[in-house]
Amino acid sequence: MSVVPSTHVELLTRPLFGHLGTLRADGAPQVNPVWFEWDGERLWFTTTTDRYKYRNIAGDPRVSLSVDDPDRPYRYLEVRGVVDTVRRDPSALGYLRLAARYGLDVDRPVGGVDANRVLLGLVPRHATCQ
Amino acid sequence: MSVVPSTHVELLTRPLFGHLGTLRADGAPQVNPVWFEWDGERLWFTTTTDRYKYRNIAGDPRVSLSVDDPDRPYRYLEVRGVVDTVRRDPSALGYLRLAARYGLDVDRPVGGVDANRVLLGLVPRHATCQ
Repeated sequence: MSVVPSTHVELLTRPLFGHLGTLRADGAPQVNPVWFEWDGERLWFTTTTDRYKYRNIAGDPRVSLSVDDPDRPYRYLEVRGVVDTVRRDPSALGYLRLAARYGLDVDRPVGGVDANRVLLGLVPRHATCQ
Repeated sequence: MSVVPSTHVELLTRPLFGHLGTLRADGAPQVNPVWFEWDGERLWFTTTTDRYKYRNIAGDPRVSLSVDDPDRPYRYLEVRGVVDTVRRDPSALGYLRLAARYGLDVDRPVGGVDANRVLLGLVPRHATCQ
């Protein structure tokens, strides 16, 4: 049973951009736009292990994702939790699935296939919405 | 001289929603959609002193604001810095200026005028963009 409220779960199933908050090495927050995919249990993101997003999460797995509804601007969902799963994605199959979800017609990642590519799985612990 | 790059400052001058990352009492990140206004030196937000956003910032003033361009979805700006100024806004004049900026035609805040209303001023220390 997910903590994500049924009234707002469609903000996770639509291909909307999320804003992912992570913690930098000094504990300060960092927020960046992200693609995501929701499988009913975890939110999945794509990155590479040499990027800040990964390094921040490797240092402290606590994250927060904020998504707002472009059709109703005061409607939003925030999901807080931890990244408890890192899956290697060296052939970028996970990346390409996400790219297709967001309507990007590519056959490889921008910047090329990268042995350091991973999928990060966020398990929600709390959700707030409006 | 602001750290905000001239190529992306218009993401701060347009009435776009931002996603503000703050730190909860336990150091975990929280991210929520916000109105903001840029005066060339600070980003201003409205809240009340009994809300998480204020309590988080009172506990640790380090924050991050992420804004993306709805017309060019891979264009974004992240501004990191500290909230170094809190201005009381008990008559909600600051709130109403922000509401007007975002096209909301109201004569008082949703929820009513509140003696605890404040404006928070974020001074940027770093910016990243794409």
